[in-house]
Amino acid sequence: MNKNQELLARREQLLGTGNPLFYEDPLHLVKGEGVWLYDADGRKYLDCYNNVPSVGHCHPHVVEALCEQARTLNIHTRYLHENILDYAERLLQKLDPSLDRVMLACTGSEANEQAMRMARHYTGGTGFICTDASYHGNTSLVAQLSAIFEPIEGYADFIRMVKWPDSYRCLDDLEGEALATAYADCVKAAIDSMHEAGIKLAGMLVCPIYANEGLSDVLPSYLQQAVKHVHDAGGVFIADEVQSAFGRTGTFWGHEQAGVVPDIMTLGKPMGAGHPISGVIARSEIIDGYRNAAMYFNTFGGNPVSCAAALAVLDVLDQESLVENAAEVGDYVLKGFKGLQDKHDIIGDVRGSGLFFGIDMVKDQATKEAAPIETKALVNKMRHAGVLMSNIGALDNVLKLRPPLPFSKENADYLLEILDQQLSSL
Amino acid sequence: MNKNQELLARREQLLGTGNPLFYEDPLHLVKGEGVWLYDADGRKYLDCYNNVPSVGHCHPHVVEALCEQARTLNIHTRYLHENILDYAERLLQKLDPSLDRVMLACTGSEANEQAMRMARHYTGGTGFICTDASYHGNTSLVAQLSAIFEPIEGYADFIRMVKWPDSYRCLDDLEGEALATAYADCVKAAIDSMHEAGIKLAGMLVCPIYANEGLSDVLPSYLQQAVKHVHDAGGVFIADEVQSAFGRTGTFWGHEQAGVVPDIMTLGKPMGAGHPISGVIARSEIIDGYRNAAMYFNTFGGNPVSCAAALAVLDVLDQESLVENAAEVGDYVLKGFKGLQDKHDIIGDVRGSGLFFGIDMVKDQATKEAAPIETKALVNKMRHAGVLMSNIGALDNVLKLRPPLPFSKENADYLLEILDQQLSSL
Repeated sequence: MNKNQELLARREQLLGTGNPLFYEDPLHLVKGEGVWLYDADGRKYLDCYNNVPSVGHCHPHVVEALCEQARTLNIHTRYLHENILDYAERLLQKLDPSLDRVMLACTGSEANEQAMRMARHYTGGTGFICTDASYHGNTSLVAQLSAIFEPIEGYADFIRMVKWPDSYRCLDDLEGEALATAYADCVKAAIDSMHEAGIKLAGMLVCPIYANEGLSDVLPSYLQQAVKHVHDAGGVFIADEVQSAFGRTGTFWGHEQAGVVPDIMTLGKPMGAGHPISGVIARSEIIDGYRNAAMYFNTFGGNPVSCAAALAVLDVLDQESLVENAAEVGDYVLKGFKGLQDKHDIIGDVRGSGLFFGIDMVKDQATKEAAPIETKALVNKMRHAGVLMSNIGALDNVLKLRPPLPFSKENADYLLEILDQQLSSL
Repeated sequence: MNKNQELLARREQLLGTGNPLFYEDPLHLVKGEGVWLYDADGRKYLDCYNNVPSVGHCHPHVVEALCEQARTLNIHTRYLHENILDYAERLLQKLDPSLDRVMLACTGSEANEQAMRMARHYTGGTGFICTDASYHGNTSLVAQLSAIFEPIEGYADFIRMVKWPDSYRCLDDLEGEALATAYADCVKAAIDSMHEAGIKLAGMLVCPIYANEGLSDVLPSYLQQAVKHVHDAGGVFIADEVQSAFGRTGTFWGHEQAGVVPDIMTLGKPMGAGHPISGVIARSEIIDGYRNAAMYFNTFGGNPVSCAAALAVLDVLDQESLVENAAEVGDYVLKGFKGLQDKHDIIGDVRGSGLFFGIDMVKDQATKEAAPIETKALVNKMRHAGVLMSNIGALDNVLKLRPPLPFSKENADYLLEILDQQLSSL
């Protein structure tokens, strides 16, 4: 038994069989630095997948801030401490002034759970709208918004799923403004269907860049129109920015891409560079009423160590101009992918914003028939060639790339070269 | 405006009004070391409240393990890594062999949420039993088990609350075995009531030492009988060990106090000494089926840094014999409290196991009328006298003490002396 087989056997024995693992030949990682990951044999991989360490793996400034605070004090928020206040202040400074309250938790699932609870409390409604290719977390309430995995409890009557705004396999072959309106009409229809069933709308919860759906280049006016329908029905718009925030898209927030200001926004993944911190930001009237009624408290949420790590992430984003880098290198990579699209028929569509990309793989350019098997094969080939990525999407055929934000043009050239080679070998 | 007033104003502006704070005159803490906390004016407080830093505030071995791993690699569990396996192995070695699978998350609420979901999946039931003075977390599902705070959604039909097994204000003035049986009969009645409503039992979820209820010295045979009723009805017993595990009670696990092996156990608070890590441990047939069906994944849960901190906590518990210390010093403190009880009429009852104590404060020894106002006043007096504690319980009149486990007899003498003084000044 080699080392990996031994680890796999222990894993199955201790954690069971239901633990997801990447790649047919799983990776045993031991070190991370910048955009690079290293396995136990000392082999180096260009990380084009991990968005959590968005400032780069084990960034010294973040590690130092974490350690300094861990050496000094780590305690819950029922005592006064500056870190949570400094952090909340810096987040709010980057947002529309209507978003004026911060509530911290530990995971994206917790943030979405609390956002849904406060939407219900604020609106008096119970109904939620999500897309038909969504995933937002793992509590029994949030799992109701999972189209990808049916919740073990089955779907509740208060959920309506709307067609995700696919800009490639478009509804009725529409384009531009007409397409945006057609998708927004689906939201209106979902609200009507809820009303017919006697259910009042609480809100719509979507990722503003449709990250799990497979990304989309649909016009911003889709979300603008959809949110108007939601507001007209007395609901709130919750932007799940767990993947899209903190510079990933080349703007600081994902909702800037969509030209809407959410009523409630949820944050997670890259927030603390791997340290478990998440958050909900909303208007005071929404958060305050909820907190006072629900007596929400989270033992670990917003502790001085979590906030020290999260503050350091903001420092690095600013000091290293990583949002600007995401925009600039993102454009460069996107152009490169479009070049590969001209060369390789299997690439049906290339989408992205900032350093978040989806490459839609098809068997046939004309029919746009999805190629999920080839997509998975390519992901495994890339891993063996030393570049890490994954696949997502409603049809499981979209290459998903979200490299750490210090990704350089040199890294991009390396990625494009290896991807070209592996596409040729398919 | 002094510094505290300034922090309070910023806090209200940034976080809103619904954030719980301890003490009429809140504490601005800046440093922790061992059993001591320090405020911004350099004043020292003996920490008799915080169970999260159970190995002592900022323990150097835990901090070093955390920092070393944070400098090296922090990544999710879809790659292979030793830390999660080493940690799971060490936990399981300390448990009954029937408990053979570990699933990691970040907070106690997440652990209880997942435990409830897997209980439902395993049993096919939906109903849950908790006590009538319980609190187990903040998701919409787990909040259903909160008797202390009514969930904003209202109570669902699948919840039954049973009288908590109070060993002081006893049911029908019963004692010993008869009392244990009388409380267990409440569980049987709850199951019957569920069945009458056409609801199948999924499980009973309680803290094995009734921590939030106000602690209890009821005989172990209560839980043994109650669990038998639950099993007979096809349900599972979930022990919420978020507060009671990791040596707190003078035994490694809280359920050892109750003489029962749970079907599912949840862990949190002291697990990573403040680093957000929590877990569910259960029989493989329960966890595996759930994980395979629900596709459970937690981005931060079980990452190498969390597990490094949690492994280091286990090291310290062993190396410094903290479980034994909790038992020994716990007995010493309990004797001291009983001495104070003889002297101060306001102390109606003293309960505890290991280094977890409840002092039940009454207006009258005969009627046992609760004294919540005096209890709160004492908590605030103790804070000004340099000793930190809080109050809990169904009647809000129980002094709650859970000092870090390296608590010494010298610390105990200091606590007893200050408490004696402040009780005299009430």
